[in-house]
Amino acid sequence: MAKETSTELLGPLFASEAMAAVFSDRGRLQGMLDFELGLARAEAEIGLIPAAAVAPIAAAAEAERLDVAALAREAAEAGIPTIPLVKQLTALVAAEDPVAARFVHWGATSQDVMDTGLVLQIGKGLAVLKPELQRLSTALARLAESQSRTAMIGRTWLQHAVPVTFGLKAAGWLDALERCRLRLEEAGEAARVLQFGGAAGTLATLGARGLEVAEVLARTLDLRLPALPWHASRDRLVALAAALGLLVGALGKMARDLSLMMQVEVAEAFEPTAPGRGGSSTMPHKRNPAASAVALAAAIRVPGIVATLLAAMPQEHERGLGGWQAEWETLPKTFLLASGSLSAMTEAMEGIRLDPQRMRANIDATRGLVMAEAVMMALAEKIGRLQAHDLVEAACHRAVAEGAHLKDVLAKDRAVAAELDAGQLARLFAPEAYLGAAEGFVQRVLAAYRDKKE
Amino acid sequence: MAKETSTELLGPLFASEAMAAVFSDRGRLQGMLDFELGLARAEAEIGLIPAAAVAPIAAAAEAERLDVAALAREAAEAGIPTIPLVKQLTALVAAEDPVAARFVHWGATSQDVMDTGLVLQIGKGLAVLKPELQRLSTALARLAESQSRTAMIGRTWLQHAVPVTFGLKAAGWLDALERCRLRLEEAGEAARVLQFGGAAGTLATLGARGLEVAEVLARTLDLRLPALPWHASRDRLVALAAALGLLVGALGKMARDLSLMMQVEVAEAFEPTAPGRGGSSTMPHKRNPAASAVALAAAIRVPGIVATLLAAMPQEHERGLGGWQAEWETLPKTFLLASGSLSAMTEAMEGIRLDPQRMRANIDATRGLVMAEAVMMALAEKIGRLQAHDLVEAACHRAVAEGAHLKDVLAKDRAVAAELDAGQLARLFAPEAYLGAAEGFVQRVLAAYRDKKE
Amino acid sequence: MAKETSTELLGPLFASEAMAAVFSDRGRLQGMLDFELGLARAEAEIGLIPAAAVAPIAAAAEAERLDVAALAREAAEAGIPTIPLVKQLTALVAAEDPVAARFVHWGATSQDVMDTGLVLQIGKGLAVLKPELQRLSTALARLAESQSRTAMIGRTWLQHAVPVTFGLKAAGWLDALERCRLRLEEAGEAARVLQFGGAAGTLATLGARGLEVAEVLARTLDLRLPALPWHASRDRLVALAAALGLLVGALGKMARDLSLMMQVEVAEAFEPTAPGRGGSSTMPHKRNPAASAVALAAAIRVPGIVATLLAAMPQEHERGLGGWQAEWETLPKTFLLASGSLSAMTEAMEGIRLDPQRMRANIDATRGLVMAEAVMMALAEKIGRLQAHDLVEAACHRAVAEGAHLKDVLAKDRAVAAELDAGQLARLFAPEAYLGAAEGFVQRVLAAYRDKKE
Amino acid sequence: MAKETSTELLGPLFASEAMAAVFSDRGRLQGMLDFELGLARAEAEIGLIPAAAVAPIAAAAEAERLDVAALAREAAEAGIPTIPLVKQLTALVAAEDPVAARFVHWGATSQDVMDTGLVLQIGKGLAVLKPELQRLSTALARLAESQSRTAMIGRTWLQHAVPVTFGLKAAGWLDALERCRLRLEEAGEAARVLQFGGAAGTLATLGARGLEVAEVLARTLDLRLPALPWHASRDRLVALAAALGLLVGALGKMARDLSLMMQVEVAEAFEPTAPGRGGSSTMPHKRNPAASAVALAAAIRVPGIVATLLAAMPQEHERGLGGWQAEWETLPKTFLLASGSLSAMTEAMEGIRLDPQRMRANIDATRGLVMAEAVMMALAEKIGRLQAHDLVEAACHRAVAEGAHLKDVLAKDRAVAAELDAGQLARLFAPEAYLGAAEGFVQRVLAAYRDKKE
Repeated sequence: MAKETSTELLGPLFASEAMAAVFSDRGRLQGMLDFELGLARAEAEIGLIPAAAVAPIAAAAEAERLDVAALAREAAEAGIPTIPLVKQLTALVAAEDPVAARFVHWGATSQDVMDTGLVLQIGKGLAVLKPELQRLSTALARLAESQSRTAMIGRTWLQHAVPVTFGLKAAGWLDALERCRLRLEEAGEAARVLQFGGAAGTLATLGARGLEVAEVLARTLDLRLPALPWHASRDRLVALAAALGLLVGALGKMARDLSLMMQVEVAEAFEPTAPGRGGSSTMPHKRNPAASAVALAAAIRVPGIVATLLAAMPQEHERGLGGWQAEWETLPKTFLLASGSLSAMTEAMEGIRLDPQRMRANIDATRGLVMAEAVMMALAEKIGRLQAHDLVEAACHRAVAEGAHLKDVLAKDRAVAAELDAGQLARLFAPEAYLGAAEGFVQRVLAAYRDKKE
Repeated sequence: MAKETSTELLGPLFASEAMAAVFSDRGRLQGMLDFELGLARAEAEIGLIPAAAVAPIAAAAEAERLDVAALAREAAEAGIPTIPLVKQLTALVAAEDPVAARFVHWGATSQDVMDTGLVLQIGKGLAVLKPELQRLSTALARLAESQSRTAMIGRTWLQHAVPVTFGLKAAGWLDALERCRLRLEEAGEAARVLQFGGAAGTLATLGARGLEVAEVLARTLDLRLPALPWHASRDRLVALAAALGLLVGALGKMARDLSLMMQVEVAEAFEPTAPGRGGSSTMPHKRNPAASAVALAAAIRVPGIVATLLAAMPQEHERGLGGWQAEWETLPKTFLLASGSLSAMTEAMEGIRLDPQRMRANIDATRGLVMAEAVMMALAEKIGRLQAHDLVEAACHRAVAEGAHLKDVLAKDRAVAAELDAGQLARLFAPEAYLGAAEGFVQRVLAAYRDKKE
Repeated sequence: MAKETSTELLGPLFASEAMAAVFSDRGRLQGMLDFELGLARAEAEIGLIPAAAVAPIAAAAEAERLDVAALAREAAEAGIPTIPLVKQLTALVAAEDPVAARFVHWGATSQDVMDTGLVLQIGKGLAVLKPELQRLSTALARLAESQSRTAMIGRTWLQHAVPVTFGLKAAGWLDALERCRLRLEEAGEAARVLQFGGAAGTLATLGARGLEVAEVLARTLDLRLPALPWHASRDRLVALAAALGLLVGALGKMARDLSLMMQVEVAEAFEPTAPGRGGSSTMPHKRNPAASAVALAAAIRVPGIVATLLAAMPQEHERGLGGWQAEWETLPKTFLLASGSLSAMTEAMEGIRLDPQRMRANIDATRGLVMAEAVMMALAEKIGRLQAHDLVEAACHRAVAEGAHLKDVLAKDRAVAAELDAGQLARLFAPEAYLGAAEGFVQRVLAAYRDKKE
Repeated sequence: MAKETSTELLGPLFASEAMAAVFSDRGRLQGMLDFELGLARAEAEIGLIPAAAVAPIAAAAEAERLDVAALAREAAEAGIPTIPLVKQLTALVAAEDPVAARFVHWGATSQDVMDTGLVLQIGKGLAVLKPELQRLSTALARLAESQSRTAMIGRTWLQHAVPVTFGLKAAGWLDALERCRLRLEEAGEAARVLQFGGAAGTLATLGARGLEVAEVLARTLDLRLPALPWHASRDRLVALAAALGLLVGALGKMARDLSLMMQVEVAEAFEPTAPGRGGSSTMPHKRNPAASAVALAAAIRVPGIVATLLAAMPQEHERGLGGWQAEWETLPKTFLLASGSLSAMTEAMEGIRLDPQRMRANIDATRGLVMAEAVMMALAEKIGRLQAHDLVEAACHRAVAEGAHLKDVLAKDRAVAAELDAGQLARLFAPEAYLGAAEGFVQRVLAAYRDKKE
């Protein structure tokens, strides 16, 4: 069992397995080792270190070969894991080839190793999210299209407003998700930059050849070369965390909607069921919205994490004290939570069960009240908006007080009857006839989605 | 005096005057009135409402004409300021032209008004930031260029590391600022979208003509038309807030560096002085880094604000309960803090005073210790990195213990003397010869900056 | 109209009028003036300054007499409002009595003035909250008592669980509120300490008499004298902010529950209605939970504010740079949001409308499913808990699949029939017989509440 | 290696070993098992379940006996770890005694298990912190006492102010720490309450005996019995997290001060050194303030965590969706960070190295400027505070401009000479004579500290 907080136990609940692997101890160590190997390759390529040093370093640069417990112990002493890591790596190389061992970590500083290692992990993390984002978009596009005429009540301030369609709701989710996807791609791409500056960002240890090494190293690791090292300028990483936070927020909105629709009294949409999924230890009838719980929990957790990374930005001078260290366990959390939330919502939306009959019944539950606006607008054209509003509002109050259908109350109202006959009134109470541009909006979203895919 | 927290008193300290005007009560009301007027114009243009209704609405849609105290009172009752606003506006129009009054707010919902009004304010807020961002970049570019050879000590973990240049430090600030500027432009552009969906996002009140009105309205207000309304999908606004947060973080880093350099014992760089600026009520000699205080305070405050906006994202159904309302006073704060911090740092960097002599003296303060790495690398080529590290580290300890210059301690060390003669040692202790790629990095940043400007 | 963000317009929506007055510009200035007057009185009392200096200072120490616009302008220059405040105060006194003017602000530093002024505002803010907290507790106690037998469905993970009572729900709200009230009292009392240390916390300007002045000053202002000044040790204020944050969180929980119960499909409890309250600009039938919106918005906003104050704690040396300034507009927000949320919930709970019939109907909506646990426990005594769980779970699935009542499905099940006869089964399906300790819990809460009141 | 983020590797750096054990997976599981065993014991004691069921349950209730990997897999499916835990526990008991297995988890719900398990972990976590808090207080009290006359410059806004003593600084740290300790004890004690309510907080499964079981169970687990279950009222836990956050903030302030004093140019105080502590992978001379880095990182991280817990408070109905789940990995973090920060600062303060000569030299570094206030106050008694301020301020400017000592500039000023002779001036420039109540304040803090200890 791990020594720290319940990661092994709860980890799989809140993060996808693939993402957990990327940001595991092993993933972190391998990222740092990949940097050290890339550095040796680049320096050998330009003749700064002997070509023969590369193979022994490559052989040693495998996370499995490290003694993590010893690393952890010494990291706690040193205040940083890189120093013991370089020691262990050097020892492993030396056991094989003492000369090669001299050239391990040549010209780099601890933060070069940790930051570039993190950037390499980030690349893998983004690759994990990408196909799942596509799966969820596909599921949402299918829902938007197939349900574009499924009428349901629109709700504002948690109260019935006027009719919408389930397709419109799904299109709204899709539209937001696609923006988050694009934003994440851009922020992810921007964050994939080499960190290589040496002790204080001058690469002084490499004399006149620093920039040359940096260029080859960036190419070797398939990263972009930044204009200058960014040891204390963390905006690219924080921007990426914010993009992940936005994704988690958008997923949280889906989960909020889904879980509200899944309430027993609403019963319009349901998470898919599976044996052992969402049960209760004591209530045999329970089907909990377990996927929504994960996504909502992530949406509650991620703001504090993004705030932490923003708060850590004013890092001192060439490399900071405290701010940088505050990122080490924090930034990975944005990826882990995003993956957990995304997996949960993908599964939920791919398997969602809908009850269109119930949706229709809920529209009717208020005996015509939700069509009040439709009537008001019809009257407004004749008697003005504000007067129409007051007249219909009064009728609504009467309908509620008398338990009557709004249509019947209005039919008895002389001021209304003067403007609208029975047939006109009846037509105003058909929800399907009061969906406005809902279908048009859905098609706009789908068209934009298809454009992007191509 | 204002009724609420100390805005009039402290406002000018933490926000620029121009930005405070954009996000004042009047600015907010005018944004909403501009929406109402734009709506009337668009609906008149396509013949949905009489053309004659526009002029009376235009005449009434001036924030000065509203009774703010009454609005505030009724807003507190209604839970939203738009309803009393529409009432006052309608009454003003009605006093002039009762027929025109019928068409005020035609087909819109409260949130259409507030959101689009906010988007219009955002456009103005971005316009306020833009020239100031350019001023600060210009100041930093000038510093980077003019000081690219001014050696100073690089500091990591708040300890002396190896020499850098002040130009490199300024280039790092500039590079980060330019990224923040670009990010802000993109997020700002993305946020400049019309909100127009009616009660639940279907524009049902406009029947078949909803999309047509939306298109003309977007054009009228010079905003983009989104694929569909975004009443409960707030990611564009939150992304913009995050971009502002990142800017504030980057400015905070500048302020952190500047205030640390301005410490009496360090004394390398100073905020400009002016009568009444940064004084003390009791200590006549005091010169406080008042600009840095503003930027650091903003950097501490902005993360909580961005977190709030992220936390508010899971808004219920078609329009949310609580989450949306949480944005109303919060989003403007990101603009206000950004403007206050930006103004402070612009003034500070345009007028910064530098003391290159003191910078040089501080390099020498540790009697050669900061050149230890230079010596180690020279030895490393001969005896391996790790051995060289240990040998020089031991010499450093002796130098500290004896109060001696590191060069002298090393000169007496047989193992060192075997590899490096006195002349070689002396050259290794010249800071100017150990700046590596500093100049190259500065030029890369400046080249990128000039490219972007063109 | 105020120059900054929409405080006059939106202020009354999110804060009570009384609290807004306490934390207005005038409130802040008066707090600082009260300190200056108290200081003069204390120093005159012990003969440090002439007794004749007190009256002119008292006459000038009225917030109305200050030129706020000039203060704001100079505060922005100086980086702090106290310096221009002392200048204006001194000038006002000098106009009356030039000799007295010499003794204004004698021995104090800016932060003494601002901090003690804030502490005096805090005292008033707590006094504003106190009666309203009592009103809400009274309302909740009445609900808990009167509805202690009103059965309704308990909901967990937003799904029906087993029956509870509305009284139990109200008792839970009350219990939490009373804890928050107590916590607030303690944190409030702890925060009511004098700040008086002079430039760097030594009171050196007062020579040997510093402590003496401090003691008399504390007594004069009715504050406790701390062991030493706390210019850079802000924990008391942040603890108070956290206590307010907890209150807002507990109120948010009430609002969450209330707004969920108020959903059209649930319809168990409703905010009170009033003309102009919670309406919609476009939907005449709308009754929005406007009080819940305020409380939920506050609960979303307050965490970021508490986080900001926590983040500002590591203030440098004797008086910090940035951290202290970050508190100025932030700490008052915790009071404003707490008062707004508290007022909203007090009004809502005092006027809440309940629908016990609907509560009962919602219990029955699932055709007996929510009584599954009752049956399971009865079976468990005979066949073990886990087996009973599986057996009843299967029956639940069948009931759902067949649209049948769970009781009927179970009655047909041989394994069940072997253990429970029809009469026993019928009794197990009576919600009122399955309320366990609900009544006992309610009485425990009420007893504790009455104990505290006495 | 753990599957999730780098806990094994970085854990020991940011948390004490003892605390990591308490909040490990094993610690969490054991907490839950302790609840299950306590429940069996309590129910057996009052005869609700057979006494013979206890021993087999006791034998099985050992965390080592569980299959964590299987638990994690099923927890991810179920959305909660308790359901598979109860299954595994039941199976283990059944293998020994099938009859006893029937009574496992009798009458409890998942959240009873997790919450009470957490409360038991909290008790252990508090016990870990307690002795370390005492060690740190002892170290600070020793510093306050022994250095109560060690003069150093006081710094405000990161600039020299007037002299203080190192003892006063240490007394300020101690005073804050003692408040945090007290607050933590109270919040910790308040949080040590049983959670036991069954499915929806009524204990209905236990019929009329619910309260009786609850009372015995609370006694068995040595916890207090709350007035009613608190499944969705989380204020006690959040208050505890806030108390831990305040502690971390106060420790962060110590670290901020220490790391600033440890700057090369300031050099007044230093973290203790040890082999392998605070070194650099590339700079042999480097001694990083590694303890301060840990404490500062914790102070940056903890606000976001407390904010998350506050944001999670509005949990729905009887047991919430998302909010509760957001606590699971979050609340433990407050303990882990507090323990890491506390250990770091304890070690740093127990071994701190001071340089009183350097402290004295830094006072003198500004050639008398820091004594300006002393002169001003002496003049103020004669010519009024504001005039004295302006006169001395002008002299300060001249001193700076001419590079002269302030005393010499003042001696040449006729207006000054008219009021103060050379002897008086000289005495005003002795820092030791301008420490005001510093010694008195230190003694007050120490007296209060000793009072509490007794």
